[in-house]
Amino acid sequence: MGLVVQKYGGSSVADAGRIRAVAERVVGAREAGNEVCVVVSAMGDSTDELLDLAQQISDVPPARELDMLLTAGERISMALLAMAIAELGHEARSFTGSQAGVITDSVHGKARIIDVTPGRIRGALNAGAVAIVAGFQGVSQDTKDVTTLGRGGSDTTAVALAAALGASVCEIYTDVDGVFTADPRIVAAARRLPATTYDEMLEMAANGAKVLHLRCVEYAKRYEMPIHVRSSFSQRPGTVVASTWRRATEVSEEESTMEQPIISGVAHDRSEGKITLVGVPDVVGAAARIFETVAEAGVNIDMIVQNVSAAGTGRTDISFTLPQADGPTALAALQGITAQTGVDNIEYNDQIGKISLVGAGMRTHPGVSAKFFGALADAGVNIEMISTSEIRISVVVQAGDVDHAVTAVHTAFDLDTTDIEAVVYGGTGR
Amino acid sequence: MGLVVQKYGGSSVADAGRIRAVAERVVGAREAGNEVCVVVSAMGDSTDELLDLAQQISDVPPARELDMLLTAGERISMALLAMAIAELGHEARSFTGSQAGVITDSVHGKARIIDVTPGRIRGALNAGAVAIVAGFQGVSQDTKDVTTLGRGGSDTTAVALAAALGASVCEIYTDVDGVFTADPRIVAAARRLPATTYDEMLEMAANGAKVLHLRCVEYAKRYEMPIHVRSSFSQRPGTVVASTWRRATEVSEEESTMEQPIISGVAHDRSEGKITLVGVPDVVGAAARIFETVAEAGVNIDMIVQNVSAAGTGRTDISFTLPQADGPTALAALQGITAQTGVDNIEYNDQIGKISLVGAGMRTHPGVSAKFFGALADAGVNIEMISTSEIRISVVVQAGDVDHAVTAVHTAFDLDTTDIEAVVYGGTGR
Repeated sequence: MGLVVQKYGGSSVADAGRIRAVAERVVGAREAGNEVCVVVSAMGDSTDELLDLAQQISDVPPARELDMLLTAGERISMALLAMAIAELGHEARSFTGSQAGVITDSVHGKARIIDVTPGRIRGALNAGAVAIVAGFQGVSQDTKDVTTLGRGGSDTTAVALAAALGASVCEIYTDVDGVFTADPRIVAAARRLPATTYDEMLEMAANGAKVLHLRCVEYAKRYEMPIHVRSSFSQRPGTVVASTWRRATEVSEEESTMEQPIISGVAHDRSEGKITLVGVPDVVGAAARIFETVAEAGVNIDMIVQNVSAAGTGRTDISFTLPQADGPTALAALQGITAQTGVDNIEYNDQIGKISLVGAGMRTHPGVSAKFFGALADAGVNIEMISTSEIRISVVVQAGDVDHAVTAVHTAFDLDTTDIEAVVYGGTGR
Repeated sequence: MGLVVQKYGGSSVADAGRIRAVAERVVGAREAGNEVCVVVSAMGDSTDELLDLAQQISDVPPARELDMLLTAGERISMALLAMAIAELGHEARSFTGSQAGVITDSVHGKARIIDVTPGRIRGALNAGAVAIVAGFQGVSQDTKDVTTLGRGGSDTTAVALAAALGASVCEIYTDVDGVFTADPRIVAAARRLPATTYDEMLEMAANGAKVLHLRCVEYAKRYEMPIHVRSSFSQRPGTVVASTWRRATEVSEEESTMEQPIISGVAHDRSEGKITLVGVPDVVGAAARIFETVAEAGVNIDMIVQNVSAAGTGRTDISFTLPQADGPTALAALQGITAQTGVDNIEYNDQIGKISLVGAGMRTHPGVSAKFFGALADAGVNIEMISTSEIRISVVVQAGDVDHAVTAVHTAFDLDTTDIEAVVYGGTGR
């Protein structure tokens, strides 16, 4: 009983049959006595089809008009879902981002939400109707133009509305059963996590786990809005993400007598490359000069490792990782300043992978790092770089080592399940 | 020089290539020194595709949600047109009906425009941009919901915006060269009318000519906004419709030394059926009872003919015409009251056609009716019903007689062209 926000992604509303299935789920929540607000993405590949139309007209379409075009997608899916709910005998009213009060800045294509004023949504709910809101879109505060929120936009819309409406939970429906201890495509014995914390989820999302976008988790953390990630293709519970593990288990309503596990999971990421600057003069400002150059090229970097100078050489090596797509840009920028930096050589390797062990428990349990490195050594995996946060340890390894490194670490930390169901229904792990 | 509103229909923006062609025409008008506001329909068959999606979900979708769905179509075409104009180096900004200030009542699916507040359009034009507006849609004054205007909605949007902005002309682009003296598919020698009046255009539209919707012409007449109907596939002038023939020829800028012709054209309509009530008792209230019954069934009727009673019988026959689609409904309603009306028999004939001669000149030129009936008699066409307005004479004939009746009348009133170009480029006459 309460107010529930549900978000359905493009694969959940890909055709009329799936839209009807979503309608049944929405009506189920309504008939259980909840007020229900639903956020939808565009149907299946329809956004790509609209982008293709735009490309037929212009290589670089004006951002304002691209937003106007793309927001047609959610308009279609939300109206169809409202019709499907009406077929089941319940009233539903659909609202654009603008009508729903999703106020953003004016950065077309990746606008940020700056306020949510859901007066019309509240009115629809008060009238007993299901409110359906277009995800991914808003209206700019200054110019009143239609904006889109960029990657992860619909998830963020859902969390923002849930916070503004004071919902008890924001349910995010996807094509997998929740967040797993590792990618089930790699680790057959990976387990679904019934509960986890915002901080752990942020580390997992930032380090390769794709089930939730970083941005939506950040928003949920700021407003302490519990997220329940679950499958739209089953009735099984998924993963509840909240401020603490205790709070998350309360919201999930799954029976649980366990203490919070030390380790939540093992994430991996094959999308990065590594640049190594060999023989960087060990002088004040050298690193600053290098990373200013990379930043000016518009490249975001991830891990940075610098060793102490080898005795007597006055030179050191600096390595950093970055998205593979940005590799050529960063290389070109750095090669342009070799004369000023005095670097001997620049190396680039895109055949790497990153393995991250994430767990709030490692704050208070010594020996986690030692066990992690030991498991990798036993598996014969060479470590190229290491970085840590308070609740995460990451290593860079050769790309070919990723799969058995993840499996070995998963086993070493006793994460393997013995629950047959979890294995069978593990889903795709996305 | 001035402010021009241009409206392009679905066939004019059916794909990327046609959208680029429209963009070139818009930019041409802009570079000629005009402020340009463009109203667009949805691309080609896209509205039908959206309707098909809705039908997959619901046989009777809620009207509010159907409007939300269908308005996605213009959003797509207008954003793409804005991109195509930007590709040609001009700024263009697209606006939904709501953003453009098209305020309507709350009758979803066939809303009526009650106000136009084009502040944002004026702002875009002042900034030197081309303003592009979604046709066919508005926002309801009371509920702020998205509405659609129904049949002819985009033409009406264009005329309403032109009036609100104080445009010098509203150009309606279609797939034919303008309004013709008859349907060129029937009369090869039909001529394009360079100019005509609202009143004549209303009579032609109401009697089968399909090039402009009645509703848009009514709106133009009320605000005295000249309409220029022309082809989006050629640069030829079309037909200007204005309050007087003199005013229309001024706007058209075509050289013309002619006086206003007595007859504008010959319209025909094969979409009606005829119901005859045989032996209606000649008592007070009989006709009222009959037509109240038809009206309560939701059927609009067109012509009504009642003869005087045959001497001594105390009974008469009443015939009326109505859309063929409404024939069965009207018949069933009338058969339900035969006991009360005392009618002997009810006959229905859907194998009829209506021929209408339209011309403002017939007000002041006697003998038009005689010449019309004479031409039909010479062609061996039997007249079943006759009705007249101040500037129109209509007859109902057998369906099989329509083609040669139209041709005979067209020739009799000297409407046949000797201009080869007009014959060759006559288009489809729609």
